[in-house]
Amino acid sequence: MPLVRIDLHSGKEAGFAAKVGAVVYEAMTTTINVPAADNFQVITEHAPGGIIYDPSYLGIERGEGIIFIQITLNSGRTVEMKKALYALIATRLHTELGVRKEDVLISLVEVVKENWSFGDGIAQYA
Amino acid sequence: MPLVRIDLHSGKEAGFAAKVGAVVYEAMTTTINVPAADNFQVITEHAPGGIIYDPSYLGIERGEGIIFIQITLNSGRTVEMKKALYALIATRLHTELGVRKEDVLISLVEVVKENWSFGDGIAQYA
Amino acid sequence: MPLVRIDLHSGKEAGFAAKVGAVVYEAMTTTINVPAADNFQVITEHAPGGIIYDPSYLGIERGEGIIFIQITLNSGRTVEMKKALYALIATRLHTELGVRKEDVLISLVEVVKENWSFGDGIAQYA
Repeated sequence: MPLVRIDLHSGKEAGFAAKVGAVVYEAMTTTINVPAADNFQVITEHAPGGIIYDPSYLGIERGEGIIFIQITLNSGRTVEMKKALYALIATRLHTELGVRKEDVLISLVEVVKENWSFGDGIAQYA
Repeated sequence: MPLVRIDLHSGKEAGFAAKVGAVVYEAMTTTINVPAADNFQVITEHAPGGIIYDPSYLGIERGEGIIFIQITLNSGRTVEMKKALYALIATRLHTELGVRKEDVLISLVEVVKENWSFGDGIAQYA
Repeated sequence: MPLVRIDLHSGKEAGFAAKVGAVVYEAMTTTINVPAADNFQVITEHAPGGIIYDPSYLGIERGEGIIFIQITLNSGRTVEMKKALYALIATRLHTELGVRKEDVLISLVEVVKENWSFGDGIAQYA
């Protein structure tokens, strides 16, 4: 059920953004019980000016490789699960795609389970 | 008060996306008491790669005609009202615009009424 | 911690959208205790058809200069703080950038503090 919005700068190699999306999805299945095949994302690549970020907020040095990941999902995950999600996304983006861990910003928006329809006009989780 | 974000693939005929938006708005007025004229939407058409979707999650066969509809709105609608909204959006998109009902994904994000300003810097609902 | 999404029509002078973002950020620091340097935004300029708005909902006359500002932030701000935020954004966009106050639509989405990672895969607020 997550709906993921990924925003990053354009100019990366072909397929990069899709790989970012795949890492985010797989990390959700590993850490916060997102089901198999439950993968829905909007990925937007921005020209300069489309992403505003502070280069040092909280002492973290960010650069043009910044990636915003905003996930709308059902409430109910514990703080520990969320922490595991953040850690795994950042670690895998770094080790597999060379993203700097400092450049990974994640935002969760939680909703109730009747707030989704995955097709056919039906509230599949209600 | 809803703010609707619609994401779909580019390449449809001129006016198609606007018609999708109109159906979504009208379905909200019919099923969840959205007022007349309360129509605010962001519609984004994406090149290939901009929308990631699973082609069979929950047994629903999705294709490139997939449409994501994410609605930020005030809380307070019942589960039955939400179900009616999903059903009417999918049915009308199908019958009026030829959208496959399987390709209609809807996500609601609920907020409190003081979280809106509709112009003039005033919290009109607070 | 706010993540701000700003949507407006394209065609303004170079730098206009960035100035809008700066006003929104500064207004948040003044009215709702957003920390220094906590500035993260996605700014999207749309061709005609990308933004749907009603030209007179609630008696407010809107035009093509419409700007949607959606802010995801931690819950806890009072209604009075939110009202002050709306007023300051609209006033400063008008006086500094010539935006019509009628054209400023603001939407807040509140989340809990463990729903953020600002880099390094860590939940900095949890």
